[in-house]
Amino acid sequence: MEFFKLSSVVRENIKRLKPYEAKEIPCKIKLDANELPFSINIFDIVKDIKISLNRYPDPEAKTLRKTIAKKLKINYEKIVIGNGSDELIYYLIITFGQPVLYPTPTFAMYGVISDVLDIKKIECPLDENFDLDIERMEKLIINQKPHLIFLSSPNNPTGNTFSNEKILKIINLAKNNSCLVVVDEAYQPFCSKKGFLSFIKDYKNLVILRTLSKIGLAGLRVGYLIADEEIVKEINKVRLPYNVDSLSQYIAEKTLNSFYPKIQNYIKEIKKERSRLLKELSKIDKIKVYPSEANFILFKVKDADKISSQLIKRGIVLRNLSLIIEDALRVTVGTRQENDEFLKALREILKV
Amino acid sequence: MEFFKLSSVVRENIKRLKPYEAKEIPCKIKLDANELPFSINIFDIVKDIKISLNRYPDPEAKTLRKTIAKKLKINYEKIVIGNGSDELIYYLIITFGQPVLYPTPTFAMYGVISDVLDIKKIECPLDENFDLDIERMEKLIINQKPHLIFLSSPNNPTGNTFSNEKILKIINLAKNNSCLVVVDEAYQPFCSKKGFLSFIKDYKNLVILRTLSKIGLAGLRVGYLIADEEIVKEINKVRLPYNVDSLSQYIAEKTLNSFYPKIQNYIKEIKKERSRLLKELSKIDKIKVYPSEANFILFKVKDADKISSQLIKRGIVLRNLSLIIEDALRVTVGTRQENDEFLKALREILKV
Repeated sequence: MEFFKLSSVVRENIKRLKPYEAKEIPCKIKLDANELPFSINIFDIVKDIKISLNRYPDPEAKTLRKTIAKKLKINYEKIVIGNGSDELIYYLIITFGQPVLYPTPTFAMYGVISDVLDIKKIECPLDENFDLDIERMEKLIINQKPHLIFLSSPNNPTGNTFSNEKILKIINLAKNNSCLVVVDEAYQPFCSKKGFLSFIKDYKNLVILRTLSKIGLAGLRVGYLIADEEIVKEINKVRLPYNVDSLSQYIAEKTLNSFYPKIQNYIKEIKKERSRLLKELSKIDKIKVYPSEANFILFKVKDADKISSQLIKRGIVLRNLSLIIEDALRVTVGTRQENDEFLKALREILKV
Repeated sequence: MEFFKLSSVVRENIKRLKPYEAKEIPCKIKLDANELPFSINIFDIVKDIKISLNRYPDPEAKTLRKTIAKKLKINYEKIVIGNGSDELIYYLIITFGQPVLYPTPTFAMYGVISDVLDIKKIECPLDENFDLDIERMEKLIINQKPHLIFLSSPNNPTGNTFSNEKILKIINLAKNNSCLVVVDEAYQPFCSKKGFLSFIKDYKNLVILRTLSKIGLAGLRVGYLIADEEIVKEINKVRLPYNVDSLSQYIAEKTLNSFYPKIQNYIKEIKKERSRLLKELSKIDKIKVYPSEANFILFKVKDADKISSQLIKRGIVLRNLSLIIEDALRVTVGTRQENDEFLKALREILKV
């Protein structure tokens, strides 16, 4: 009798992938995941929860979509809700994925999901200021014919936005080359510039991604996508009918309807702290700080690995990016006290 | 300037698919979705909810997996949690999907997701008693070399289980033909026979799917998969890191730890009502009833379409299967009162 070998069943592209490793580092101050640092409990948002858990969720998430639509002043049929925007990236690549193009470094999931789905990915390095290399992008669009371009702006993990002019240039060129452009605005709430929402009506090849994860609801897993109804219709063909559970739909809607002023205060606080943190980090000679329009700051420092470990020993976890960007660490903007503790620890470690 | 045509960006296999249409029919008595009919509120399960929604969920869902593992007396590393078992079916097909084989009629998602992912599907009709056509299945395994077989047992929408002997025959043949067998036990809690859990240790090509959706938590979206650690490792490569939100993880765990006796009573009640409903339906000459080991009953009746519409007019919604199985309707076992109202309405419509 033959012996069963799992490797003969696993798809070739999956076999090549490394297993995902979740490294949850126990810590006092968690500044690695771009979460909002202010604790939000469910009862800060709602007084009561009247949901029959025995019933399936609304497969169309109508109440939540209409709530978002009203806030954004658009038709709710332009919206798809996802189990985090991660899931929407999955659906976008399944629906449209032929070569996928994105600048690097950027959010890891565009590449990870392309690999999982065995879709060719084209990476176009950002320039030395982490800005778009527009000429190279243009050449790649024309020669490689991607169907999907991801632009994270503000970009994770670099923190900068790309100029409207450059993004529009790409959208226009993409339009004439049968290509969709996904502007991932996960960090838009922290940005001083307006996002791309107003361009949705003019560009049938534009998709915008947003999420509630960075503004206080990471635990809920609610992302959303805004695009022309025709695009929404195609994505809905691949979307699992019950992809967002009843509680997440409910809490997200209540947050937008009655807890949003509080969220806006939190965002204001983070922007203030970001300025302060940027200023304080700039004072440290041994560090090169990059400007940020997001809720995190990227900086370069010699021996980033070692410094990251020493911060961990003191209970402070940053995101160590040194494998992706030489010498780089990314710190999420925390509460005033967390930021002070981080700065103090960093100064001690650097002996400045 | 060229005009942007979405159809030139959509993948060919997606273009061919019909858009998903959620038809939520407003009704008094909802017997179409195989939900538990007893209303379960979140505060029936927990007194308080202490979760910081601003933090990402545990990407490994360790507490929930360990809770399930303890109940099932297996290693928690044999478990993957999904956003409903729908998501796990997605992941299984992404990871292993080459031809996917399943008997029909069965749960629609095996075919729907295969189409979405452009994976060849092989359908093997059940015999006239809705039992496995084992000879034909064997031939298909040998000739078509599927990598993945789905067996829903108890089978949705027919309600019957397949014999252990037949399922084991398929698992053994699959084992020698580089093929995984997924036994989908969504309805196992309502079944009088034992499930396939005890075979996991002997068969490295066996995967079991379970869900909390049919036993009172459809709104939460929590399904789980049990398989050898090696299989789990491959699936985790394609799983989104934060696929199950914090609240769902928390409520599911609390349900299993402290609300389960109540769930078991509900299951007992449904099984009692199923017997009664089967008996009552059998008394109606104009109806052919099929035995059921699930929380629903399949029956055939002339003019099923018309009868379904007439029931809807009276506020009672069943699942109309007549496009899949001639003359067939599927009724979820409801509360005693709901079942009585359904029987009364049906008798009136049939004039018996």
